[in-house]
Amino acid sequence: MFTHRESGSLEYPKGNDMALTLTPLPSLPIISPGDDLAALILDTLEQNHLSLADGDILVIAQKIISKAEGRLVNLTTVQPSDRAKEYAEITGKDPRLLELILSESKSVLRTRENLIIVEHRLGFISANAGIDHSNVSGPWGNPEDWVLLLPENPDFSAENLRKAIEKACGCRIGVVIIDSHGRAWRLGTIGTTIGLSGMPGLVDLRGQPDLFDYRLRMTQVAAADELAAAASLIMGQAKEGTPVVHVQGFPYPLREGSLQELIRPEEMDLFR
Amino acid sequence: MFTHRESGSLEYPKGNDMALTLTPLPSLPIISPGDDLAALILDTLEQNHLSLADGDILVIAQKIISKAEGRLVNLTTVQPSDRAKEYAEITGKDPRLLELILSESKSVLRTRENLIIVEHRLGFISANAGIDHSNVSGPWGNPEDWVLLLPENPDFSAENLRKAIEKACGCRIGVVIIDSHGRAWRLGTIGTTIGLSGMPGLVDLRGQPDLFDYRLRMTQVAAADELAAAASLIMGQAKEGTPVVHVQGFPYPLREGSLQELIRPEEMDLFR
Repeated sequence: MFTHRESGSLEYPKGNDMALTLTPLPSLPIISPGDDLAALILDTLEQNHLSLADGDILVIAQKIISKAEGRLVNLTTVQPSDRAKEYAEITGKDPRLLELILSESKSVLRTRENLIIVEHRLGFISANAGIDHSNVSGPWGNPEDWVLLLPENPDFSAENLRKAIEKACGCRIGVVIIDSHGRAWRLGTIGTTIGLSGMPGLVDLRGQPDLFDYRLRMTQVAAADELAAAASLIMGQAKEGTPVVHVQGFPYPLREGSLQELIRPEEMDLFR
Repeated sequence: MFTHRESGSLEYPKGNDMALTLTPLPSLPIISPGDDLAALILDTLEQNHLSLADGDILVIAQKIISKAEGRLVNLTTVQPSDRAKEYAEITGKDPRLLELILSESKSVLRTRENLIIVEHRLGFISANAGIDHSNVSGPWGNPEDWVLLLPENPDFSAENLRKAIEKACGCRIGVVIIDSHGRAWRLGTIGTTIGLSGMPGLVDLRGQPDLFDYRLRMTQVAAADELAAAASLIMGQAKEGTPVVHVQGFPYPLREGSLQELIRPEEMDLFR
């Protein structure tokens, strides 16, 4: 089943259909508002003599989607409300940034010095409503004044990207858009799904037999989030960022899907 | 940089050092108490003419560690305390199982019908203190009466396994032990680190320049958890389980590490 490589490292034969391989796409340009991301990704594939296959998945960093969709905001254009100013008092953050955070949120869950955790309008819980400053610049003014909001509708962004790429490649793929999220009880960020298209968010294994033929009763796997974390690991967070990762060997069948599958409904939430 | 494969799918050249490849090891036997896991993994590698290389990581499902370490308990041997009986009333779960859950926990965070979430004695928050019934059987009595506790000290288990395997392969590897965890605000389980050795839990990117030469201020990446999630995706949860995954291309340098890096200290916890 395997071959041995002289160098002493491990080499799996081609066609090993159990392996999961994640490869960052090289040489994508820096993305600006209005850029056609699907065209740029297809160009990168073509320049490198690459093609996609049925069942492959592209994992995309939220930032390039947001940039292409023009979700940049200059803080000097924002008028903070009284509510934003109150949260600025509590957190010590810029009231204009808080205005944007509140406008992107359904509710505020927790605040502390330098911290605000909200329910994002898209349904997930996140710090700062996912609004980010790193790797962001704008067309005028002080670069420090520019921030980037999450895409308006990441499922829709993923769907558009997928359809354009599928049309060009003639194959059936999945697309997942990810961001780095913190967690309630653990340190460090982890790549997490904020939108998807053409692939499952959750995979339900309930009712399948285990090794001893019991039926699993409780197992729903957050397959898209597991893939988001995997891709995040090799995207890089700093200068060397590679915002598109190509995945071969996703182990579940593709189907229609949406972010909503992954969001715990409020009535099942014990930690709000 | 890439080559094109006739079949229409994508082929990356050997030696692409940016790819992350995860491959489940085949043909590991069902593990019983007292089994020498390191020897069994080394046998599997040898039978398949495989060898490991510096920087490779083995991701191991908690269950086979716990089984090898004899962490099976038959519920008919457990005497539930009054406290366990109280939680049994609240949750509707077996009081003997609750006795075990409490004995493995520092505190109980939340309870509901059919649900108990605790702070495990190892420091992480989990449902049922990680005690599991699926894929578990025992040497006598009714198979339904057997449950499996987490390893006594997963960092130590990972360390032992790593040292034995490193000694045999003559190379420097990392080992991470994972379990499937639920999350506060999202549905579905995700592979999560419960012990590690010889690799980072967290990677600190603070102070590194981003694309526009700002300094990142907040980014600590839960690299071990991102890898845990990735490996979990291809381990399989049901009959086809493959409990050992070989990782090539982990993008950070190996070093000493421990689970504790990943646990949010209680004073930083806003959601207990």
